[in-house]
Amino acid sequence: MLRSRMKKEIDKDALELISSLSHDKNIFYYDIMVDYAHVLNLLKNKIINTNDAKKIIKALLEIEKHGFGDLNGEDVHEAIERKVIEIAGESGKKMHTARSRNDEIATCLRLFARDNILNLMKNIIELRKAIINKAEEYIDTIMPGFTHLQYAQPTKLSHHLIAYHDMLERDFKRCLNAFERINLCPLGCAALASTSFPLDRSYVANLLGFDGVIDNCMDAVSSRDFIFDAVFAATSTMLSLSRIAEEIILWSSEFDFVEVPEEFASVSSIMPQKKNPDTLEIIRGKAGKIIGELTSSLAIYKGLPFAYNRDFQEINDILYESLIWAIKSVKVMKKLFPSLVFKKENLEKKAMKNFSYATEIADELVKKGVPFREAHSIVGKFISNESELKKKLEKFGIILEDLKDAKKIVESRKNLGGTSKEEIIRMIENRKWKIKNDEKILKSTFERINSKIKNLYKEIEEVLCT
Amino acid sequence: MLRSRMKKEIDKDALELISSLSHDKNIFYYDIMVDYAHVLNLLKNKIINTNDAKKIIKALLEIEKHGFGDLNGEDVHEAIERKVIEIAGESGKKMHTARSRNDEIATCLRLFARDNILNLMKNIIELRKAIINKAEEYIDTIMPGFTHLQYAQPTKLSHHLIAYHDMLERDFKRCLNAFERINLCPLGCAALASTSFPLDRSYVANLLGFDGVIDNCMDAVSSRDFIFDAVFAATSTMLSLSRIAEEIILWSSEFDFVEVPEEFASVSSIMPQKKNPDTLEIIRGKAGKIIGELTSSLAIYKGLPFAYNRDFQEINDILYESLIWAIKSVKVMKKLFPSLVFKKENLEKKAMKNFSYATEIADELVKKGVPFREAHSIVGKFISNESELKKKLEKFGIILEDLKDAKKIVESRKNLGGTSKEEIIRMIENRKWKIKNDEKILKSTFERINSKIKNLYKEIEEVLCT
Amino acid sequence: MLRSRMKKEIDKDALELISSLSHDKNIFYYDIMVDYAHVLNLLKNKIINTNDAKKIIKALLEIEKHGFGDLNGEDVHEAIERKVIEIAGESGKKMHTARSRNDEIATCLRLFARDNILNLMKNIIELRKAIINKAEEYIDTIMPGFTHLQYAQPTKLSHHLIAYHDMLERDFKRCLNAFERINLCPLGCAALASTSFPLDRSYVANLLGFDGVIDNCMDAVSSRDFIFDAVFAATSTMLSLSRIAEEIILWSSEFDFVEVPEEFASVSSIMPQKKNPDTLEIIRGKAGKIIGELTSSLAIYKGLPFAYNRDFQEINDILYESLIWAIKSVKVMKKLFPSLVFKKENLEKKAMKNFSYATEIADELVKKGVPFREAHSIVGKFISNESELKKKLEKFGIILEDLKDAKKIVESRKNLGGTSKEEIIRMIENRKWKIKNDEKILKSTFERINSKIKNLYKEIEEVLCT
Amino acid sequence: MLRSRMKKEIDKDALELISSLSHDKNIFYYDIMVDYAHVLNLLKNKIINTNDAKKIIKALLEIEKHGFGDLNGEDVHEAIERKVIEIAGESGKKMHTARSRNDEIATCLRLFARDNILNLMKNIIELRKAIINKAEEYIDTIMPGFTHLQYAQPTKLSHHLIAYHDMLERDFKRCLNAFERINLCPLGCAALASTSFPLDRSYVANLLGFDGVIDNCMDAVSSRDFIFDAVFAATSTMLSLSRIAEEIILWSSEFDFVEVPEEFASVSSIMPQKKNPDTLEIIRGKAGKIIGELTSSLAIYKGLPFAYNRDFQEINDILYESLIWAIKSVKVMKKLFPSLVFKKENLEKKAMKNFSYATEIADELVKKGVPFREAHSIVGKFISNESELKKKLEKFGIILEDLKDAKKIVESRKNLGGTSKEEIIRMIENRKWKIKNDEKILKSTFERINSKIKNLYKEIEEVLCT
Repeated sequence: MLRSRMKKEIDKDALELISSLSHDKNIFYYDIMVDYAHVLNLLKNKIINTNDAKKIIKALLEIEKHGFGDLNGEDVHEAIERKVIEIAGESGKKMHTARSRNDEIATCLRLFARDNILNLMKNIIELRKAIINKAEEYIDTIMPGFTHLQYAQPTKLSHHLIAYHDMLERDFKRCLNAFERINLCPLGCAALASTSFPLDRSYVANLLGFDGVIDNCMDAVSSRDFIFDAVFAATSTMLSLSRIAEEIILWSSEFDFVEVPEEFASVSSIMPQKKNPDTLEIIRGKAGKIIGELTSSLAIYKGLPFAYNRDFQEINDILYESLIWAIKSVKVMKKLFPSLVFKKENLEKKAMKNFSYATEIADELVKKGVPFREAHSIVGKFISNESELKKKLEKFGIILEDLKDAKKIVESRKNLGGTSKEEIIRMIENRKWKIKNDEKILKSTFERINSKIKNLYKEIEEVLCT
Repeated sequence: MLRSRMKKEIDKDALELISSLSHDKNIFYYDIMVDYAHVLNLLKNKIINTNDAKKIIKALLEIEKHGFGDLNGEDVHEAIERKVIEIAGESGKKMHTARSRNDEIATCLRLFARDNILNLMKNIIELRKAIINKAEEYIDTIMPGFTHLQYAQPTKLSHHLIAYHDMLERDFKRCLNAFERINLCPLGCAALASTSFPLDRSYVANLLGFDGVIDNCMDAVSSRDFIFDAVFAATSTMLSLSRIAEEIILWSSEFDFVEVPEEFASVSSIMPQKKNPDTLEIIRGKAGKIIGELTSSLAIYKGLPFAYNRDFQEINDILYESLIWAIKSVKVMKKLFPSLVFKKENLEKKAMKNFSYATEIADELVKKGVPFREAHSIVGKFISNESELKKKLEKFGIILEDLKDAKKIVESRKNLGGTSKEEIIRMIENRKWKIKNDEKILKSTFERINSKIKNLYKEIEEVLCT
Repeated sequence: MLRSRMKKEIDKDALELISSLSHDKNIFYYDIMVDYAHVLNLLKNKIINTNDAKKIIKALLEIEKHGFGDLNGEDVHEAIERKVIEIAGESGKKMHTARSRNDEIATCLRLFARDNILNLMKNIIELRKAIINKAEEYIDTIMPGFTHLQYAQPTKLSHHLIAYHDMLERDFKRCLNAFERINLCPLGCAALASTSFPLDRSYVANLLGFDGVIDNCMDAVSSRDFIFDAVFAATSTMLSLSRIAEEIILWSSEFDFVEVPEEFASVSSIMPQKKNPDTLEIIRGKAGKIIGELTSSLAIYKGLPFAYNRDFQEINDILYESLIWAIKSVKVMKKLFPSLVFKKENLEKKAMKNFSYATEIADELVKKGVPFREAHSIVGKFISNESELKKKLEKFGIILEDLKDAKKIVESRKNLGGTSKEEIIRMIENRKWKIKNDEKILKSTFERINSKIKNLYKEIEEVLCT
Repeated sequence: MLRSRMKKEIDKDALELISSLSHDKNIFYYDIMVDYAHVLNLLKNKIINTNDAKKIIKALLEIEKHGFGDLNGEDVHEAIERKVIEIAGESGKKMHTARSRNDEIATCLRLFARDNILNLMKNIIELRKAIINKAEEYIDTIMPGFTHLQYAQPTKLSHHLIAYHDMLERDFKRCLNAFERINLCPLGCAALASTSFPLDRSYVANLLGFDGVIDNCMDAVSSRDFIFDAVFAATSTMLSLSRIAEEIILWSSEFDFVEVPEEFASVSSIMPQKKNPDTLEIIRGKAGKIIGELTSSLAIYKGLPFAYNRDFQEINDILYESLIWAIKSVKVMKKLFPSLVFKKENLEKKAMKNFSYATEIADELVKKGVPFREAHSIVGKFISNESELKKKLEKFGIILEDLKDAKKIVESRKNLGGTSKEEIIRMIENRKWKIKNDEKILKSTFERINSKIKNLYKEIEEVLCT
């Protein structure tokens, strides 16, 4: 359709290489939405007349209804335009006036990124809730704390779980930061330098639910850094999940702290007794995958001159896949959490394993006047020889057994962010409040966008009814 | 000093492998600052007395004055503590009370990240200014616009340069987003679960210029995602620079649009005539480097269980190197920009090369009633056959020569973000305003932090004077 | 089918997350081939009887004929086994005896990797031929040589193209290195520690066209480094292509050295005159993509304990995608090369641009007794002032114009690997010989494998006929 | 020294950015060696006379003796040349005749890569020996085998350790593959297109211990893929180490299978009882680091046109760092292995944990005529209900207790690569033979190179003595 300048058709293998159709299904509906908005803009600015607009919109509605199905061509934009022309005839040939695929694809990508980053945020909030619920459920459960995967000091499961929440809260904020740079409209910028047809860019931005426009037209079609923001936020989220997954995998293995629910476990094809935490391994694996996807997108982009280069297309699928799988991963984690059963007894039994009370002894010696570094040294020397240690401590009036009380230890940590009951309760209440707050932000964002999109459809209706 | 528990010293090769000393010089002063603040906190909470505090602070002052120089050991924390004990004796042994290297290193890293991300932001602002100045200098210069590195449509150099600015403005915002997650204090969290010694975490956070605390102690020592924020912002900045560098490299090559200033060029050791854009190639290369550094940090972190793991140490140097070189790269680009001389004549001469006015013809046909897709097709068919094209256009009353006026074309693009003079002026004024605004944000941030740090030193003075 | 141990079905979203079915289509035929071979092994070792073997093989033939189509389940192995049981009844339930999905998937992946790395090698050889043909076509064409994208010294197009060949020859060797580590059989290793059923591992390896077995069973099911070999070879190949693509993109832009054939170019949807080198941009973009795919695979694998972990599954699709697209990219490049038309006149005209003869002058001064570093300095000083330079040179009896003969310069470089005609001819002949040699290696490899596979099918026939 | 063409000195900050001096220390001695060889070549071909050669060589000897110390300038090549001129006067100015930094740096990098990849190979062999020794030490020790980190089937420690060896054997081969592409000489190729001075490239290649030349001169200076080979081999090695490290970390934690020797463990600064496997965590961390280093090198290289671009310089340090740290990591692992003490009792006690004998039961049912899939299902259903299971099995004449004998199970796996004593012994003997073979390859390589290097120094002597 576009190749009137050429004498030869594109090579079959080259077409297969450069065609984006296989992953364009991800933006099929967005492309149609962009078409609606653009047509309304053409009409508003009298570049086309109502009759043309009507015919195009009707064709688009038909295509939308029919779905992506049997589209073919170099890409979804061209394929839809061809269909519109098939259906709407001469009027259809006017749809692409004052527009380039360059601003069109940039707009579609931003719509996809926006909706999916919001969806990711929604799921992150739900996972945060599930975690805080679990923390409340096990609010007093004492457990061993680890560093270097070695027994370190006693702590509380609730304290540990709140740390999960806090990682994810930051991921939520990363998504929000990304959203702010994503939800801006490049439509109307044409190939790279705007167009001489009068277009109302703010109008069309509003129709599509954007919070503003990408101002400079060269920037609007040449930049893909909004995708990095999205993929980075998803990557960070996946890394948070990978750490949680790793701990559940370890804890459902030899540590024996938790039972992976059957609905999230798999069986071996040869070993009938196996119950494997496949879901968590896949999440951990997908965290590795997305690291490379972020890498790909950055490596593709490096050193590309302005404006559009076809290399950009290779970044699109990364946007789709990384967000889609991040959402699915968070969703599964969110479903898994409520059914996790922690083994309180094991956790508490092992809270003092491998001399986890050693710091307590050193601190007690400090309170008796021994400089900490010396106290540390003394405890280090005698820790594995209990009778000697006891003797040594008695000289300071310290009874070793008194220090082996995990509950006393964790409750004595009353500083901000510590393990005492008071602090745990404060943190849980605070996180609940933060979750509510983030829900409000998200809700108002959804409502703002939805009301604009509704308006788009209302305006389409109006055109059809004139 | 710490190995009283062990019977054997660490293996020499193992020590070389695990020692962080070679890159700890980057946090030497931060570690001392953290020590000051911690000692003040111990004193405030009566965990040590004034005499001890005085002696430790004096020792620290001496070490600070002496510099990193001949420190040795497993890491800078241990090395400084050892020196403090050498100088301050028994009092020195009290410095590490109620503290772990886990909260100590996390604090040092955040201080480094904070100061350097702010420094990066400062340099980005200056580069943005230099770019906007250049845009003003060449406000009316017409140039060819490219897509796929092929001549596309005429545009303006100022319009193109504003797009550079806008990329970098977003990078500034990424830094700001990172800063907000970085400038929170983990000090006081001890190993992973707080301490039973009473510590005022807000007090110490304030002394160190932080805007708040990392609340949950497990999270505070187990998380390094703030480093990803910093490295990601630096990576995004470097990618923006890489694209600018690529264009200057191309434009100072066959395109012949710009002259790379001699101060930023190198010569060949064999070919005496060469003037090579090495500075820009290195910047482009460093963009490739930092992609891998971000990758490294993510790959190291993936799937690590809580709390501290020594793997974290491998991320530290990535933080240092990526920020240091991003700052240097932006600084050099900022110095290079003012002396860039664009070759107006070449730019304007080539603005219409390779039928860059073709879109204009198609648009003109549209204005005469031809549907765009048809107009596109007609122009495509005849564009390389001027006499035929002229005939074709005459039928529509269009004079081809009238459409070949680049100036007319660029001025006709009056939509938001377009190339018309009015729009360029609006965008330049708007960017100046944004730069000023960002300068204000940065200035108030520096002032806020500096006044807190001043207070830290004032409190140290007061201890010494008691 | 496998979950008799469980009381609950797997969660729907978890299943979607962990199912590999969507990309298992890549190994569908390999899995069936593995089933054939395993059944023959079971029969040979009398673990099943002829009747069972017959029934299973018949079922497999039916499934093979029917294709991947409507398979469903957690993965292709389970799905095929279920179908076999549906068709072959009780006999079908015996197929998975003495086998695990762990050795099964490892075998399928190696078969895929083997066939596709060989296919890649075949295409690389063809591209090398196309390049050497082009070098012969332009054997005497003089062109400018560049460093730092600046004019450096005159060279020959044929010399430049031979360098393309040599990169790709090394990529071929990388593939060969990978192949040697890939084409070894893990089948028979069961879950991780072999099986007590007697199996002839060499027999089954032979049936599947392997060159040997992976000896240690734990290693056989726990290792995926053969995938890194394959993906690394593909990555290296793509990087070679990216450099060739970059040069063609540059050369078909302002440099104007070559015309991209229309069959490999695209048109703009808005700018009717555009002829864009999209195919080459996509290849360059896919080089960026595969860098991240390699990264993903390494990041997933890092630190995984033995034996099988489900994370491995995330690496499978990387193997498929990276090889498939590398093959397609090489294939398109191979088709593009013969139709590339270089613009001899432009190449020769620009061979001496920007004082590319400067080294020649310095060398001539050396021959007159001036130390090179001094000669370099003299030429550097006067190069842009021709009249002064001439005077300076006359003192040494050098006529500047004599040195400006590009042909003389390139022919004077007679050292090994230089640009003289003799050397070019030698290199072309040598490369042709190398290509032939590599073709022989590849041919004998294909024949060896094919004859083994033929034998597999012959043995199947024999079972069916008993 | 080189900037006679320029009127301005290079900007101070730009120089800092582009200078490679800080990491050039890694190739200081190689650069001097290259200078020696080049001077001998100039002399042999009468481009300089004996007197000049003598003076230059003397200057080089002096510089070599003095060491890298106080060199300054843009890079080591220029710095050394400047020193040579300082010492040798006019003669010194002749050293760089018929040479460019382009062929010089390529040669230095290949020398570094060659020596370090061989060093890595030497250490890998020693680690393989240490592992096989350990396997012999624990030849009969039964242990649990895991999949998905869940108890799977009993196996033997020796069998498991041989799998470690086999991974590393492949890494050795990767190094060897890399070596073959590395040890070829680019010297004499000058800037990109050879030189008209007659040079004997084979002679100089021999002097430097290379096994041949990189033939085409453009390829010789434009290619860095030999670095990818080296870094990839190092990365693969580090990934193998990361998996071993991960297992030792796990096994010295809750699994309690092994004791990390004190010489390779660290202590906490706060928790006196801690013995942390820091060495292994650092190795695991460095595996993450090197993934990104490989990524960086690939991302820098992608799409760079011929010939030299300064971006290449950013790859150099990656070569140095990745090989240096891979060598150190393997060395430490090699030292750690002999002192690892496995806890036989724990290993054997847990070999049958969590129904690890379940496969055995299913297999036994198969031997009684139950199709495997049914047997699997039966065992799955009853495995956690022992009394029911026993009853079920009795119907088939199977005594459950007979199947719970781990020793019997592992000895029954007599197939190739299985866990039976016979197979273990065969594999150990085979690995010893392979190690010896690889040692021979390495030894003859070292000898070949050393004898060539000796000859270089002999020829230098001869020049000095004329």
